[in-house]
Amino acid sequence: MTSLEPFTTMLDLEAGAIEPERKLTERRLGDLDGLFLEPVPAERAGEPAYTVSEIPAPVSGSNLLSSTTVLQPGRVGREFHMTKGHYHEVRDRAEIYVTLAGEGRLVMGTEDGRHQVEPMRRGTVNYVAGRWAHRSVNVGGEPLIFYAVYVADAGYDYGTIEEEGFPVVVLAGDSGPEVVPNPRYRK
Amino acid sequence: MTSLEPFTTMLDLEAGAIEPERKLTERRLGDLDGLFLEPVPAERAGEPAYTVSEIPAPVSGSNLLSSTTVLQPGRVGREFHMTKGHYHEVRDRAEIYVTLAGEGRLVMGTEDGRHQVEPMRRGTVNYVAGRWAHRSVNVGGEPLIFYAVYVADAGYDYGTIEEEGFPVVVLAGDSGPEVVPNPRYRK
Repeated sequence: MTSLEPFTTMLDLEAGAIEPERKLTERRLGDLDGLFLEPVPAERAGEPAYTVSEIPAPVSGSNLLSSTTVLQPGRVGREFHMTKGHYHEVRDRAEIYVTLAGEGRLVMGTEDGRHQVEPMRRGTVNYVAGRWAHRSVNVGGEPLIFYAVYVADAGYDYGTIEEEGFPVVVLAGDSGPEVVPNPRYRK
Repeated sequence: MTSLEPFTTMLDLEAGAIEPERKLTERRLGDLDGLFLEPVPAERAGEPAYTVSEIPAPVSGSNLLSSTTVLQPGRVGREFHMTKGHYHEVRDRAEIYVTLAGEGRLVMGTEDGRHQVEPMRRGTVNYVAGRWAHRSVNVGGEPLIFYAVYVADAGYDYGTIEEEGFPVVVLAGDSGPEVVPNPRYRK
């Protein structure tokens, strides 16, 4: 049972800004230390990595959460900036990503070691099927901006990815982004 | 349990087109006869009213369905073109509408007779809370185009709205759209 009433929020379909701002999470490169193949240099720990601006709703399987992520361009070593990545705590919950700007890769993996990498650019609608952990990677020179929608009770399991990583990583190569096996994948 | 794999679809963030086209529903004015205050004139029965282009997913509470609706401008009598409108079969399922183009009103109502009308224009994100029937109304001169996301098991109950209507209707007035009590509301 929810007593939620209908409401309206503004979403900038180019820049991703949400008005009024309701719930903002900011991650800096230092928050991502340990996720890249190389350590984040101490002098870069304070550098903004990404923000997530959410439209909250009560946690239940009937409601939807949605949010805009703005992921800054850049690299740590040869590895492109990326989000922490997570499974849903309720494993089978799906998610939809609508990319508004930038160029990215959506890296996904399953607990039994499969992986899939999908393109992200303005107008892509990525369907993240249930049971697939997901991480977005900015492979371009501009912010990667996407709007995501998911069932409100999905929850977040960041720990499994922090420990195991994804089966693949996305590196800058001589002729563009390269998807290569993750040498630190612990499965 | 779903064995769905991740996949990507293109969404035109201006015109709403979905590529590849996966599942298209077309409604003509004749399909809406009986929903407007006035009958749809016989010579207009074949006129396109709206299309819904859906990105399908298996029906379950873990998956998400999404679709683009393109609602043509026009009126039947003083009443603006509108969608059929429905409750979700699973009443408490919420829905999110992201408007891409045009000018509309999202008319919502509850089974206990409350109503709420929210604006639709490029960038509005309307949160249709669970238990609220919803209908979109095109009050502008161009197609009203929006992308909607909802829990895949929500289902559709069109019959209740066909019988009872919404508590209010949106009519063309001298100084723009007017929201007035529905004289045919049967609650």
